[in-house]
Amino acid sequence: MPDVYRSDILIRFRHCDPAGIVFFPRYMEMFNDLVEDWCREALGFDFNEIHLARGWGLPTVHLDVDFLAPSVLGDRLGATLRVNHIGSSSLGVEITLCGPDGAERVRGKSVLVFIRAETKRAEPIPDELRARITRFYAG
Amino acid sequence: MPDVYRSDILIRFRHCDPAGIVFFPRYMEMFNDLVEDWCREALGFDFNEIHLARGWGLPTVHLDVDFLAPSVLGDRLGATLRVNHIGSSSLGVEITLCGPDGAERVRGKSVLVFIRAETKRAEPIPDELRARITRFYAG
Amino acid sequence: MPDVYRSDILIRFRHCDPAGIVFFPRYMEMFNDLVEDWCREALGFDFNEIHLARGWGLPTVHLDVDFLAPSVLGDRLGATLRVNHIGSSSLGVEITLCGPDGAERVRGKSVLVFIRAETKRAEPIPDELRARITRFYAG
Amino acid sequence: MPDVYRSDILIRFRHCDPAGIVFFPRYMEMFNDLVEDWCREALGFDFNEIHLARGWGLPTVHLDVDFLAPSVLGDRLGATLRVNHIGSSSLGVEITLCGPDGAERVRGKSVLVFIRAETKRAEPIPDELRARITRFYAG
Repeated sequence: MPDVYRSDILIRFRHCDPAGIVFFPRYMEMFNDLVEDWCREALGFDFNEIHLARGWGLPTVHLDVDFLAPSVLGDRLGATLRVNHIGSSSLGVEITLCGPDGAERVRGKSVLVFIRAETKRAEPIPDELRARITRFYAG
Repeated sequence: MPDVYRSDILIRFRHCDPAGIVFFPRYMEMFNDLVEDWCREALGFDFNEIHLARGWGLPTVHLDVDFLAPSVLGDRLGATLRVNHIGSSSLGVEITLCGPDGAERVRGKSVLVFIRAETKRAEPIPDELRARITRFYAG
Repeated sequence: MPDVYRSDILIRFRHCDPAGIVFFPRYMEMFNDLVEDWCREALGFDFNEIHLARGWGLPTVHLDVDFLAPSVLGDRLGATLRVNHIGSSSLGVEITLCGPDGAERVRGKSVLVFIRAETKRAEPIPDELRARITRFYAG
Repeated sequence: MPDVYRSDILIRFRHCDPAGIVFFPRYMEMFNDLVEDWCREALGFDFNEIHLARGWGLPTVHLDVDFLAPSVLGDRLGATLRVNHIGSSSLGVEITLCGPDGAERVRGKSVLVFIRAETKRAEPIPDELRARITRFYAG
Protein backbone atom coordinates (compact mmCIF):
# COMPACT_ATOMS: atom_id res chain seq x y z
CA MET A 1 0.00 0.00 0.00
CA PRO A 2 1.42 3.40 -0.95
CA ASP A 3 1.84 6.06 1.71
CA VAL A 4 -0.56 8.97 1.95
CA TYR A 5 0.60 12.30 3.32
CA ARG A 6 -1.97 13.84 5.66
CA SER A 7 -2.29 17.28 7.14
CA ASP A 8 -4.90 19.56 8.72
CA ILE A 9 -5.89 23.00 7.56
CA LEU A 10 -7.77 25.60 9.57
CA ILE A 11 -9.85 27.93 7.40
CA ARG A 12 -8.81 31.41 8.42
CA PHE A 13 -10.18 34.89 8.00
CA ARG A 14 -7.61 35.68 5.29
CA HIS A 15 -8.81 32.73 3.19
CA CYS A 16 -12.42 33.95 2.94
CA ASP A 17 -14.12 36.24 0.46
CA PRO A 18 -17.03 38.66 0.83
CA ALA A 19 -19.40 35.72 0.30
CA GLY A 20 -17.91 34.23 3.49
CA ILE A 21 -16.41 31.22 1.73
CA VAL A 22 -12.85 30.33 0.78
CA PHE A 23 -11.65 32.31 -2.26
CA PHE A 24 -10.40 29.67 -4.72
CA PRO A 25 -6.85 31.09 -5.19
CA ARG A 26 -6.39 30.58 -1.43
CA TYR A 27 -7.02 26.85 -1.97
CA MET A 28 -4.18 26.95 -4.49
CA GLU A 29 -1.94 28.46 -1.79
CA MET A 30 -3.01 25.57 0.46
CA PHE A 31 -2.02 23.11 -2.30
CA ASN A 32 1.41 24.73 -2.45
CA ASP A 33 1.77 24.64 1.35
CA LEU A 34 0.81 20.98 1.31
CA VAL A 35 3.49 20.08 -1.26
CA GLU A 36 5.95 22.17 0.77
CA ASP A 37 5.06 20.33 3.99
CA TRP A 38 5.21 16.94 2.27
CA CYS A 39 8.68 17.68 0.87
CA ARG A 40 9.93 18.76 4.29
CA GLU A 41 8.21 16.26 6.56
CA ALA A 42 7.79 13.18 4.42
CA LEU A 43 10.59 13.39 1.84
CA GLY A 44 13.19 15.03 4.08
CA PHE A 45 13.88 17.48 1.30
CA ASP A 46 12.69 20.91 2.24
CA PHE A 47 12.05 23.92 0.00
CA ASN A 48 15.24 25.53 1.27
CA GLU A 49 17.24 22.59 0.05
CA ILE A 50 15.33 22.55 -3.25
CA HIS A 51 15.30 26.28 -3.99
CA LEU A 52 18.33 27.67 -2.21
CA ALA A 53 20.90 24.92 -1.70
CA ARG A 54 20.29 23.13 -5.01
CA GLY A 55 19.28 26.10 -7.13
CA TRP A 56 16.21 24.31 -8.38
CA GLY A 57 12.69 25.44 -8.93
CA LEU A 58 9.55 23.34 -8.64
CA PRO A 59 6.92 25.18 -10.67
CA THR A 60 3.38 23.86 -11.07
CA VAL A 61 2.78 23.28 -14.78
CA HIS A 62 -0.71 21.84 -14.68
CA LEU A 63 -3.75 22.05 -12.40
CA ASP A 64 -7.08 20.26 -12.61
CA VAL A 65 -9.30 21.05 -9.66
CA ASP A 66 -12.90 20.46 -8.65
CA PHE A 67 -14.36 22.67 -5.97
CA LEU A 68 -17.16 20.44 -4.74
CA ALA A 69 -18.48 22.26 -1.70
CA PRO A 70 -17.67 25.57 -0.02
CA SER A 71 -15.71 25.98 3.21
CA VAL A 72 -16.25 28.72 5.75
CA LEU A 73 -14.29 30.51 8.47
CA GLY A 74 -13.30 28.13 11.26
CA ASP A 75 -13.70 24.89 9.28
CA ARG A 76 -10.99 22.32 9.87
CA LEU A 77 -10.20 20.43 6.70
CA GLY A 78 -8.35 17.15 6.40
CA ALA A 79 -5.87 17.17 3.52
CA THR A 80 -4.34 14.19 1.74
CA LEU A 81 -1.59 14.04 -0.88
CA ARG A 82 -0.84 11.02 -3.08
CA VAL A 83 1.55 10.67 -6.02
CA ASN A 84 -0.07 9.63 -9.31
CA HIS A 85 2.84 10.15 -11.69
CA ILE A 86 6.63 10.19 -11.56
CA GLY A 87 8.38 11.18 -14.75
CA SER A 88 12.05 11.89 -15.32
CA SER A 89 11.60 15.52 -14.19
CA SER A 90 7.91 15.75 -13.44
CA LEU A 91 5.75 14.76 -10.55
CA GLY A 92 1.98 14.37 -10.42
CA VAL A 93 0.13 14.69 -7.13
CA GLU A 94 -3.50 14.19 -6.15
CA ILE A 95 -4.76 16.35 -3.35
CA THR A 96 -8.05 16.19 -1.51
CA LEU A 97 -9.40 18.55 1.12
CA CYS A 98 -12.26 17.11 3.15
CA GLY A 99 -14.68 18.66 5.59
CA PRO A 100 -15.10 17.53 9.21
CA ASP A 101 -17.69 14.98 8.00
CA GLY A 102 -15.14 13.44 5.63
CA ALA A 103 -16.92 14.65 2.48
CA GLU A 104 -14.64 16.05 -0.22
CA ARG A 105 -14.63 19.81 -0.56
CA VAL A 106 -11.78 20.14 -3.06
CA ARG A 107 -10.17 17.46 -5.22
CA GLY A 108 -7.28 18.33 -7.47
CA LYS A 109 -4.39 17.07 -9.48
CA SER A 110 -1.27 19.04 -10.10
CA VAL A 111 1.85 18.40 -12.07
CA LEU A 112 5.11 19.93 -10.90
CA VAL A 113 8.44 19.96 -12.70
CA PHE A 114 11.92 20.07 -11.29
CA ILE A 115 13.85 22.77 -13.10
CA ARG A 116 17.22 24.46 -12.79
CA ALA A 117 16.17 27.91 -11.57
CA GLU A 118 18.86 29.76 -13.51
CA THR A 119 18.13 28.20 -16.90
CA LYS A 120 14.46 27.33 -16.25
CA ARG A 121 15.18 23.96 -17.89
CA ALA A 122 13.90 20.60 -16.63
CA GLU A 123 16.27 18.77 -14.30
CA PRO A 124 16.08 15.00 -13.64
CA ILE A 125 14.67 14.15 -10.22
CA PRO A 126 17.69 12.84 -8.29
CA ASP A 127 17.60 9.14 -7.37
CA GLU A 128 17.65 9.76 -3.62
CA LEU A 129 14.50 11.86 -3.92
CA ARG A 130 12.84 9.57 -6.47
CA ALA A 131 13.03 6.64 -4.09
CA ARG A 132 11.28 8.59 -1.35
CA ILE A 133 8.61 9.94 -3.71
CA THR A 134 7.89 6.42 -4.96
CA ARG A 135 6.64 5.40 -1.50
CA PHE A 136 3.68 7.73 -2.12
CA TYR A 137 2.99 6.48 -5.64
CA ALA A 138 -0.57 5.20 -5.84
CA GLY A 139 -0.24 3.89 -9.41
CA MET B 1 -17.84 35.69 -34.87
CA PRO B 2 -18.11 35.62 -31.07
CA ASP B 3 -16.67 38.48 -29.06
CA VAL B 4 -13.41 38.07 -27.17
CA TYR B 5 -12.77 40.07 -24.01
CA ARG B 6 -9.22 41.41 -23.89
CA SER B 7 -7.20 42.96 -21.12
CA ASP B 8 -3.57 43.66 -20.17
CA ILE B 9 -1.80 42.53 -17.05
CA LEU B 10 1.45 43.91 -15.67
CA ILE B 11 3.45 41.35 -13.71
CA ARG B 12 4.15 42.99 -10.39
CA PHE B 13 6.50 42.39 -7.51
CA ARG B 14 3.70 40.91 -5.40
CA HIS B 15 3.00 38.26 -8.05
CA CYS B 16 6.51 36.81 -8.00
CA ASP B 17 8.06 34.09 -5.89
CA PRO B 18 11.61 33.56 -4.64
CA ALA B 19 12.44 31.95 -8.00
CA GLY B 20 11.59 35.31 -9.59
CA ILE B 21 8.61 33.96 -11.53
CA VAL B 22 4.86 34.33 -11.02
CA PHE B 23 3.59 32.13 -8.17
CA PHE B 24 0.74 30.10 -9.67
CA PRO B 25 -1.98 31.10 -7.14
CA ARG B 26 -1.39 34.69 -8.29
CA TYR B 27 -2.38 33.64 -11.82
CA MET B 28 -5.61 32.37 -10.29
CA GLU B 29 -6.17 35.82 -8.77
CA MET B 30 -5.61 37.26 -12.27
CA PHE B 31 -8.25 34.85 -13.63
CA ASN B 32 -10.68 36.12 -11.02
CA ASP B 33 -9.84 39.75 -11.81
CA LEU B 34 -10.38 39.04 -15.49
CA VAL B 35 -13.85 37.57 -14.91
CA GLU B 36 -14.60 40.55 -12.65
CA ASP B 37 -13.48 43.03 -15.33
CA TRP B 38 -15.41 41.19 -18.04
CA CYS B 39 -18.61 41.25 -15.97
CA ARG B 40 -18.23 44.97 -15.31
CA GLU B 41 -16.93 46.21 -18.65
CA ALA B 42 -18.40 43.81 -21.18
CA LEU B 43 -21.55 42.49 -19.55
CA GLY B 44 -22.52 45.67 -17.69
CA PHE B 45 -23.11 43.56 -14.62
CA ASP B 46 -20.49 44.30 -12.02
CA PHE B 47 -19.53 42.25 -8.97
CA ASN B 48 -21.32 44.76 -6.73
CA GLU B 49 -24.55 44.11 -8.58
CA ILE B 50 -23.93 40.36 -8.51
CA HIS B 51 -22.76 39.99 -4.90
CA LEU B 52 -24.34 42.88 -3.07
CA ALA B 53 -27.45 44.07 -4.91
CA ARG B 54 -28.63 40.61 -6.06
CA GLY B 55 -27.31 38.55 -3.16
CA TRP B 56 -25.67 36.10 -5.52
CA GLY B 57 -22.35 34.37 -5.46
CA LEU B 58 -20.29 33.28 -8.44
CA PRO B 59 -17.93 30.61 -7.13
CA THR B 60 -15.45 28.80 -9.36
CA VAL B 61 -16.31 25.10 -9.30
CA HIS B 62 -13.76 23.77 -11.75
CA LEU B 63 -10.32 24.77 -12.99
CA ASP B 64 -8.13 23.20 -15.64
CA VAL B 65 -4.96 25.16 -16.26
CA ASP B 66 -1.71 24.71 -18.15
CA PHE B 67 1.21 26.86 -17.12
CA LEU B 68 3.23 26.76 -20.33
CA ALA B 69 6.01 29.25 -19.71
CA PRO B 70 7.06 31.37 -16.76
CA SER B 71 6.52 35.13 -16.47
CA VAL B 72 8.81 37.52 -14.65
CA LEU B 73 8.60 40.92 -12.96
CA GLY B 74 7.74 43.65 -15.45
CA ASP B 75 6.27 41.39 -18.15
CA ARG B 76 3.13 42.71 -19.79
CA LEU B 77 0.74 39.90 -20.61
CA GLY B 78 -2.18 40.03 -22.99
CA ALA B 79 -5.25 38.28 -21.58
CA THR B 80 -8.25 36.94 -23.47
CA LEU B 81 -11.53 35.52 -22.19
CA ARG B 82 -14.00 33.51 -24.28
CA VAL B 83 -17.13 31.62 -23.23
CA ASN B 84 -17.15 27.90 -24.00
CA HIS B 85 -20.23 26.82 -22.09
CA ILE B 86 -23.50 28.34 -20.89
CA GLY B 87 -25.68 26.13 -18.74
CA SER B 88 -28.79 27.03 -16.82
CA SER B 89 -26.71 28.23 -13.84
CA SER B 90 -23.15 27.57 -14.94
CA LEU B 91 -20.73 29.37 -17.15
CA GLY B 92 -17.53 28.05 -18.72
CA VAL B 93 -14.75 30.44 -19.71
CA GLU B 94 -11.47 29.95 -21.53
CA ILE B 95 -8.69 32.26 -20.52
CA THR B 96 -5.29 32.75 -22.10
CA LEU B 97 -2.41 34.88 -20.90
CA CYS B 98 0.19 35.57 -23.57
CA GLY B 99 3.65 37.07 -23.41
CA PRO B 100 4.74 40.15 -25.36
CA ASP B 101 5.69 37.85 -28.28
CA GLY B 102 2.15 36.47 -28.40
CA ALA B 103 3.15 33.00 -27.16
CA GLU B 104 0.84 31.49 -24.58
CA ARG B 105 2.10 31.50 -21.02
CA VAL B 106 -1.05 30.27 -19.28
CA ARG B 107 -4.13 28.64 -20.79
CA GLY B 108 -7.04 27.71 -18.59
CA LYS B 109 -10.66 26.81 -18.44
CA SER B 110 -12.85 27.56 -15.49
CA VAL B 111 -16.45 26.84 -14.68
CA LEU B 112 -18.37 29.25 -12.49
CA VAL B 113 -21.83 28.83 -11.04
CA PHE B 114 -24.41 31.43 -10.16
CA ILE B 115 -25.66 30.72 -6.67
CA ARG B 116 -27.89 32.41 -4.12
CA ALA B 117 -25.31 33.45 -1.49
CA GLU B 118 -27.61 32.81 1.45
CA THR B 119 -28.61 29.28 0.51
CA LYS B 120 -25.50 28.45 -1.58
CA ARG B 121 -27.90 26.89 -4.13
CA ALA B 122 -27.62 27.28 -7.89
CA GLU B 123 -29.63 30.14 -9.35
CA PRO B 124 -30.65 30.34 -13.03
CA ILE B 125 -28.66 32.91 -15.00
CA PRO B 126 -31.17 35.70 -15.66
CA ASP B 127 -32.16 36.19 -19.31
CA GLU B 128 -30.81 39.74 -19.53
CA LEU B 129 -27.38 38.46 -18.52
CA ARG B 130 -27.57 35.29 -20.60
CA ALA B 131 -28.06 37.31 -23.77
CA ARG B 132 -24.94 39.36 -23.09
CA ILE B 133 -22.86 36.32 -22.18
CA THR B 134 -23.92 34.58 -25.40
CA ARG B 135 -22.12 37.23 -27.47
CA PHE B 136 -18.85 35.77 -26.12
CA TYR B 137 -19.83 32.14 -26.74
CA ALA B 138 -17.25 30.52 -28.99
CA GLY B 139 -19.12 27.23 -29.32
CA MET C 1 2.69 39.40 35.59
CA PRO C 2 0.49 39.69 32.50
CA ASP C 3 0.12 36.74 30.19
CA VAL C 4 1.91 36.67 26.84
CA TYR C 5 0.44 34.74 23.93
CA ARG C 6 3.10 32.79 22.04
CA SER C 7 3.05 31.06 18.71
CA ASP C 8 5.45 29.77 16.03
CA ILE C 9 5.50 30.73 12.39
CA LEU C 10 7.22 28.86 9.59
CA ILE C 11 8.31 31.12 6.74
CA ARG C 12 6.86 29.56 3.62
CA PHE C 13 7.42 29.87 -0.09
CA ARG C 14 4.24 31.94 -0.49
CA HIS C 15 5.51 34.53 2.00
CA CYS C 16 8.67 35.33 0.05
CA ASP C 17 9.34 37.83 -2.71
CA PRO C 18 11.75 37.78 -5.66
CA ALA C 19 14.47 39.06 -3.33
CA GLY C 20 14.01 35.83 -1.34
CA ILE C 21 12.77 37.58 1.80
CA VAL C 22 9.33 37.91 3.35
CA PHE C 23 7.17 40.43 1.47
CA PHE C 24 5.94 42.86 4.14
CA PRO C 25 2.18 42.49 3.47
CA ARG C 26 2.63 38.79 4.31
CA TYR C 27 3.83 39.82 7.78
CA MET C 28 0.57 41.73 8.12
CA GLU C 29 -1.32 38.52 7.29
CA MET C 30 0.74 36.83 10.03
CA PHE C 31 -0.31 39.59 12.45
CA ASN C 32 -3.95 38.91 11.59
CA ASP C 33 -3.47 35.15 12.00
CA LEU C 34 -1.86 35.76 15.37
CA VAL C 35 -4.79 37.85 16.63
CA GLU C 36 -7.14 35.16 15.26
CA ASP C 37 -5.24 32.39 17.08
CA TRP C 38 -5.08 34.38 20.30
CA CYS C 39 -8.85 35.02 20.22
CA ARG C 40 -9.55 31.32 19.64
CA GLU C 41 -6.94 29.71 21.88
CA ALA C 42 -6.39 32.20 24.65
CA LEU C 43 -9.64 34.15 24.87
CA GLY C 44 -11.99 31.28 23.96
CA PHE C 45 -13.70 33.62 21.54
CA ASP C 46 -13.04 32.56 18.01
CA PHE C 47 -13.46 34.55 14.80
CA ASN C 48 -16.58 32.55 13.96
CA GLU C 49 -18.20 33.67 17.19
CA ILE C 50 -17.03 37.24 16.62
CA HIS C 51 -17.88 37.58 12.92
CA LEU C 52 -20.68 35.12 12.34
CA ALA C 53 -22.52 34.42 15.59
CA ARG C 54 -22.27 37.95 17.00
CA GLY C 55 -22.33 39.90 13.75
CA TRP C 56 -19.29 41.89 14.75
CA GLY C 57 -16.25 43.00 12.87
CA LEU C 58 -12.78 43.55 14.28
CA PRO C 59 -11.03 45.83 11.79
CA THR C 60 -7.48 47.04 12.32
CA VAL C 61 -7.57 50.84 12.52
CA HIS C 62 -3.91 51.56 13.18
CA LEU C 63 -0.58 49.90 12.49
CA ASP C 64 2.92 50.92 13.52
CA VAL C 65 5.52 48.40 12.48
CA ASP C 66 9.30 48.16 12.36
CA PHE C 67 10.82 45.59 10.05
CA LEU C 68 14.19 45.16 11.73
CA ALA C 69 15.77 42.25 9.87
CA PRO C 70 14.70 40.11 6.91
CA SER C 71 13.41 36.55 7.15
CA VAL C 72 13.94 33.88 4.53
CA LEU C 73 12.28 30.66 3.38
CA GLY C 74 12.38 28.00 6.08
CA ASP C 75 12.99 30.35 9.02
CA ARG C 76 11.00 29.54 12.13
CA LEU C 77 9.93 32.68 13.94
CA GLY C 78 8.73 32.96 17.50
CA ALA C 79 5.76 35.28 17.83
CA THR C 80 4.48 37.04 20.93
CA LEU C 81 1.33 39.08 21.49
CA ARG C 82 0.72 41.38 24.44
CA VAL C 83 -2.10 43.85 25.11
CA ASN C 84 -1.03 47.46 25.58
CA HIS C 85 -4.41 49.19 25.53
CA ILE C 86 -8.04 48.35 26.30
CA GLY C 87 -10.59 51.02 25.50
CA SER C 88 -14.35 50.79 25.53
CA SER C 89 -14.40 49.39 21.99
CA SER C 90 -10.73 49.34 21.02
CA LEU C 91 -7.87 47.03 21.74
CA GLY C 92 -4.15 47.68 21.32
CA VAL C 93 -1.75 44.79 20.83
CA GLU C 94 2.02 44.58 20.63
CA ILE C 95 3.40 41.86 18.42
CA THR C 96 6.97 40.70 18.00
CA LEU C 97 8.37 38.16 15.58
CA CYS C 98 11.79 36.88 16.52
CA GLY C 99 14.35 34.79 14.65
CA PRO C 100 15.71 31.48 15.90
CA ASP C 101 18.44 33.42 17.77
CA GLY C 102 15.79 35.41 19.66
CA ALA C 103 16.61 38.69 17.90
CA GLU C 104 13.58 40.72 16.83
CA ARG C 105 12.78 40.66 13.14
CA VAL C 106 9.47 42.52 13.26
CA ARG C 107 7.98 44.60 16.07
CA GLY C 108 4.57 46.13 15.68
CA LYS C 109 1.62 47.70 17.40
CA SER C 110 -1.87 47.49 16.09
CA VAL C 111 -5.16 48.88 17.25
CA LEU C 112 -8.34 46.97 16.52
CA VAL C 113 -11.91 48.08 17.08
CA PHE C 114 -14.98 46.04 17.81
CA ILE C 115 -17.73 47.13 15.46
CA ARG C 116 -21.21 45.98 14.55
CA ALA C 117 -20.63 44.63 11.02
CA GLU C 118 -23.97 45.82 9.70
CA THR C 119 -23.69 49.43 10.84
CA LYS C 120 -19.86 49.59 10.94
CA ARG C 121 -20.25 51.42 14.29
CA ALA C 122 -18.10 50.78 17.35
CA GLU C 123 -19.52 48.25 19.79
CA PRO C 124 -18.48 48.07 23.48
CA ILE C 125 -16.23 45.09 24.24
CA PRO C 126 -18.48 42.74 26.26
CA ASP C 127 -17.49 42.26 29.90
CA GLU C 128 -16.86 38.52 29.58
CA LEU C 129 -14.31 39.21 26.83
CA ARG C 130 -12.81 42.26 28.56
CA ALA C 131 -11.93 40.18 31.60
CA ARG C 132 -10.03 37.66 29.50
CA ILE C 133 -8.24 40.33 27.47
CA THR C 134 -7.13 42.05 30.67
CA ARG C 135 -5.01 39.05 31.63
CA PHE C 136 -2.75 39.94 28.68
CA TYR C 137 -2.59 43.65 29.53
CA ALA C 138 1.01 44.66 30.00
CA GLY C 139 0.25 48.21 31.14
CA MET D 1 5.61 73.08 -5.20
CA PRO D 2 6.66 69.44 -4.97
CA ASP D 3 5.16 66.90 -7.34
CA VAL D 4 2.51 64.47 -6.12
CA TYR D 5 2.18 61.06 -7.73
CA ARG D 6 -1.47 60.13 -8.29
CA SER D 7 -3.12 56.89 -9.20
CA ASP D 8 -6.53 55.18 -9.06
CA ILE D 9 -7.36 51.90 -7.37
CA LEU D 10 -10.45 49.78 -7.97
CA ILE D 11 -11.45 47.74 -4.92
CA ARG D 12 -11.75 44.20 -6.15
CA PHE D 13 -13.29 41.00 -4.88
CA ARG D 14 -9.88 39.63 -3.89
CA HIS D 15 -9.25 42.64 -1.63
CA CYS D 16 -12.31 42.07 0.53
CA ASP D 17 -12.84 39.99 3.64
CA PRO D 18 -15.89 38.16 4.99
CA ALA D 19 -17.07 41.42 6.53
CA GLY D 20 -17.23 42.81 2.97
CA ILE D 21 -14.51 45.41 3.52
CA VAL D 22 -10.89 45.60 2.42
CA PHE D 23 -8.66 43.27 4.46
CA PHE D 24 -5.85 45.50 5.76
CA PRO D 25 -2.92 43.45 4.37
CA ARG D 26 -4.41 44.08 0.91
CA TYR D 27 -3.99 47.82 1.51
CA MET D 28 -0.32 47.10 2.16
CA GLU D 29 -0.13 45.35 -1.22
CA MET D 30 -1.69 48.51 -2.73
CA PHE D 31 1.01 50.59 -1.02
CA ASN D 32 3.67 48.38 -2.61
CA ASP D 33 1.99 48.61 -6.03
CA LEU D 34 1.87 52.37 -5.68
CA VAL D 35 5.60 52.64 -4.95
CA GLU D 36 6.21 50.26 -7.86
CA ASP D 37 4.11 52.40 -10.22
CA TRP D 38 5.72 55.61 -9.02
CA CYS D 39 9.21 54.20 -9.60
CA ARG D 40 8.30 53.09 -13.12
CA GLU D 41 6.12 55.98 -14.27
CA ALA D 42 7.43 58.97 -12.39
CA LEU D 43 11.07 58.13 -11.66
CA GLY D 44 11.77 56.15 -14.85
CA PHE D 45 13.37 53.50 -12.71
CA ASP D 46 11.28 50.37 -12.73
CA PHE D 47 11.38 47.44 -10.31
CA ASN D 48 13.09 45.33 -12.99
CA GLU D 49 15.93 47.81 -13.15
CA ILE D 50 16.07 48.04 -9.34
CA HIS D 51 15.76 44.33 -8.51
CA LEU D 52 17.12 42.53 -11.54
CA ALA D 53 19.49 44.79 -13.48
CA ARG D 54 21.02 46.49 -10.43
CA GLY D 55 20.76 43.65 -7.94
CA TRP D 56 19.16 45.88 -5.38
CA GLY D 57 16.33 45.37 -2.99
CA LEU D 58 13.95 48.02 -1.69
CA PRO D 59 12.48 46.57 1.50
CA THR D 60 9.99 48.47 3.62
CA VAL D 61 11.54 48.96 7.06
CA HIS D 62 8.83 50.99 8.74
CA LEU D 63 5.08 51.44 8.41
CA ASP D 64 2.73 53.77 10.24
CA VAL D 65 -0.81 53.56 8.94
CA ASP D 66 -4.24 54.83 9.95
CA PHE D 67 -7.24 53.03 8.53
CA LEU D 68 -9.83 55.79 8.85
CA ALA D 69 -12.86 54.39 7.06
CA PRO D 70 -13.66 51.08 5.38
CA SER D 71 -13.77 50.51 1.62
CA VAL D 72 -16.05 48.03 -0.11
CA LEU D 73 -16.16 46.08 -3.36
CA GLY D 74 -16.39 48.38 -6.37
CA ASP D 75 -15.11 51.53 -4.64
CA ARG D 76 -12.70 53.60 -6.68
CA LEU D 77 -10.03 55.15 -4.51
CA GLY D 78 -7.77 58.03 -5.39
CA ALA D 79 -4.18 57.44 -4.25
CA THR D 80 -1.45 59.99 -3.69
CA LEU D 81 2.24 59.52 -2.92
CA ARG D 82 4.55 62.22 -1.62
CA VAL D 83 8.15 62.02 -0.36
CA ASN D 84 8.71 63.16 3.21
CA HIS D 85 12.29 62.01 3.75
CA ILE D 86 15.38 61.32 1.66
CA GLY D 87 18.34 59.86 3.50
CA SER D 88 21.55 58.48 2.09
CA SER D 89 19.95 55.06 1.54
CA SER D 90 16.43 55.51 2.86
CA LEU D 91 13.30 57.03 1.47
CA GLY D 92 10.16 58.08 3.33
CA VAL D 93 6.84 58.26 1.52
CA GLU D 94 3.40 59.46 2.56
CA ILE D 95 0.50 57.69 0.96
CA THR D 96 -3.18 58.52 1.10
CA LEU D 97 -6.10 56.58 -0.29
CA CYS D 98 -9.29 58.61 -0.59
CA GLY D 99 -12.88 57.63 -1.32
CA PRO D 100 -14.91 59.01 -4.22
CA ASP D 101 -15.99 61.92 -1.96
CA GLY D 102 -12.35 62.86 -1.37
CA ALA D 103 -12.39 61.82 2.31
CA GLU D 104 -9.34 59.90 3.46
CA ARG D 105 -9.82 56.18 3.94
CA VAL D 106 -6.19 55.22 4.59
CA ARG D 107 -3.23 57.45 5.44
CA GLY D 108 0.19 55.96 5.87
CA LYS D 109 3.88 56.60 6.02
CA SER D 110 6.45 54.07 5.00
CA VAL D 111 10.20 54.04 5.00
CA LEU D 112 12.04 52.02 2.37
CA VAL D 113 15.75 51.33 2.17
CA PHE D 114 17.90 50.68 -0.86
CA ILE D 115 19.98 47.58 -0.20
CA ARG D 116 22.30 45.35 -2.16
CA ALA D 117 20.18 42.18 -2.45
CA GLU D 118 23.13 39.82 -2.13
CA THR D 119 24.56 41.30 1.04
CA LYS D 120 21.32 42.83 2.38
CA ARG D 121 23.37 45.94 3.23
CA ALA D 122 22.24 49.51 2.65
CA GLU D 123 23.31 51.03 -0.65
CA PRO D 124 23.49 54.80 -1.29
CA ILE D 125 20.68 56.07 -3.51
CA PRO D 126 22.40 56.91 -6.81
CA ASP D 127 22.50 60.60 -7.73
CA GLU D 128 20.45 60.19 -10.90
CA LEU D 129 17.63 58.68 -8.88
CA ARG D 130 17.98 61.09 -5.96
CA ALA D 131 17.41 64.05 -8.24
CA ARG D 132 14.16 62.58 -9.53
CA ILE D 133 12.95 61.60 -6.07
CA THR D 134 13.63 65.12 -4.81
CA ARG D 135 10.95 66.54 -7.13
CA PHE D 136 8.39 64.73 -4.95
CA TYR D 137 9.89 65.91 -1.67
CA ALA D 138 7.25 67.76 0.31
CA GLY D 139 9.60 68.82 3.13
